[in-house]
Amino acid sequence: MTKNDVKELQSLKQSKGRKERGIFAVEGNKLVEELIDSRFRVNNIFATEQWVEKNPVLAKKVADYEIITPKQMEQISNFVTPPGIFATAMMPKYKIEPKDSENQLILLLDGINDPGNLGTIIRTADWFGIKKIVISEDTCDPWQPKAIQSTMGSIFRIQIVETDVVGFLKGVKTPVFGALMQGKNVYHTHISYNKGVVIIGSESHGIRENVLPFVSCPINIPRAEGSQTESLNASVATGIILSEIFRVNA
Amino acid sequence: MTKNDVKELQSLKQSKGRKERGIFAVEGNKLVEELIDSRFRVNNIFATEQWVEKNPVLAKKVADYEIITPKQMEQISNFVTPPGIFATAMMPKYKIEPKDSENQLILLLDGINDPGNLGTIIRTADWFGIKKIVISEDTCDPWQPKAIQSTMGSIFRIQIVETDVVGFLKGVKTPVFGALMQGKNVYHTHISYNKGVVIIGSESHGIRENVLPFVSCPINIPRAEGSQTESLNASVATGIILSEIFRVNA
Repeated sequence: MTKNDVKELQSLKQSKGRKERGIFAVEGNKLVEELIDSRFRVNNIFATEQWVEKNPVLAKKVADYEIITPKQMEQISNFVTPPGIFATAMMPKYKIEPKDSENQLILLLDGINDPGNLGTIIRTADWFGIKKIVISEDTCDPWQPKAIQSTMGSIFRIQIVETDVVGFLKGVKTPVFGALMQGKNVYHTHISYNKGVVIIGSESHGIRENVLPFVSCPINIPRAEGSQTESLNASVATGIILSEIFRVNA
Repeated sequence: MTKNDVKELQSLKQSKGRKERGIFAVEGNKLVEELIDSRFRVNNIFATEQWVEKNPVLAKKVADYEIITPKQMEQISNFVTPPGIFATAMMPKYKIEPKDSENQLILLLDGINDPGNLGTIIRTADWFGIKKIVISEDTCDPWQPKAIQSTMGSIFRIQIVETDVVGFLKGVKTPVFGALMQGKNVYHTHISYNKGVVIIGSESHGIRENVLPFVSCPINIPRAEGSQTESLNASVATGIILSEIFRVNA
């Protein structure tokens, strides 16, 4: 591995570097194995001698890896203590059309900015069988290490499409649900599992003003009487809403 | 503020230092204001000149603060960029008895080890009106900055008691629900909101073996057909279970 290779791989730590190259990186046994088992196109896999010694079974499965030094691994890794296995893969190019909401429920994230929340939402959506997630331009990058880590592998199974949300919603003809403080009790709202859009807004500002007019049915998770909590965490709220939709339709 | 004071406050960054002194710290406008509005006994409040200038209204409300230098603030703060307001308070000493589960639902956390998850669970429990949370000895420290931050202030409203979980459960006479892979569909299980215990296990290992025998009713959140996700995030799973209990009883 040349110094230039290291530089190239280090550029993947930044969103800009990933987007320019169309490449992202994953680390650690679980994610690298999930990557190999996925339909994603793998570019390169790097491992340290120490990792191979400790993980003979997975090393055999991975097969096509290049040995690098612990120092090189430290340079390219996103971890203080690198797991010892590092892979790069091509970012997939999924597409979404407004009419996709006519035969499946689409989750739309409008400005989620915590990578842990974003990853957890992707993982939860995958659990409940959602196939496509639309993210707004101001949602954080799902291909950053912390987000990928939090998906626990779901990033390889669910389609995530960044798009102009307003443009997308303009074409949607199915019901559009939005999580809002002043919405209708979600426990008393029938949301179909087979069509429509559910919008979750940002942790601090909710759904953006220019997106709000597209919400045809505002929904809300009721709070216990007397509770002074101002809000739920965005991934918890998404989990509760998806669970409720799943429960009613199952 | 003397060098010794700085050292003393820095010791609160570690669980050991907090436990020895029975004191914890919070930072930032929201948490300091929630602390002041709570029943907690405040020890000291420190602010920088810059913070006071920028926050005249809150500074007036806080009133009893000591001005320290930005350098001192950096030394005691848990943030890379300190918010500028830092308070210490006495850790509350709550008690729990097995019979408490006879007139309220108790949440029991068995080994949650991510502070963000723990804080989010506390916040979610507060939203759904839970009053007491029992945590096992191997659950992470709820008084650490990341956990407190994630509670968004709920740590001041909900009683969290660290206790010998097995000893506690031995005395419980009400139903004990436990989130388990092979549990009964939670959507078809009636869980009372007014009594009993709900156990959530650790993110990686679930409920410990020595705690399992006390689970009288294992429950599970069903997964969509065909989904290959192995598990839900612990705080999302807790949110879904509490939401379901709340929905059925509301």
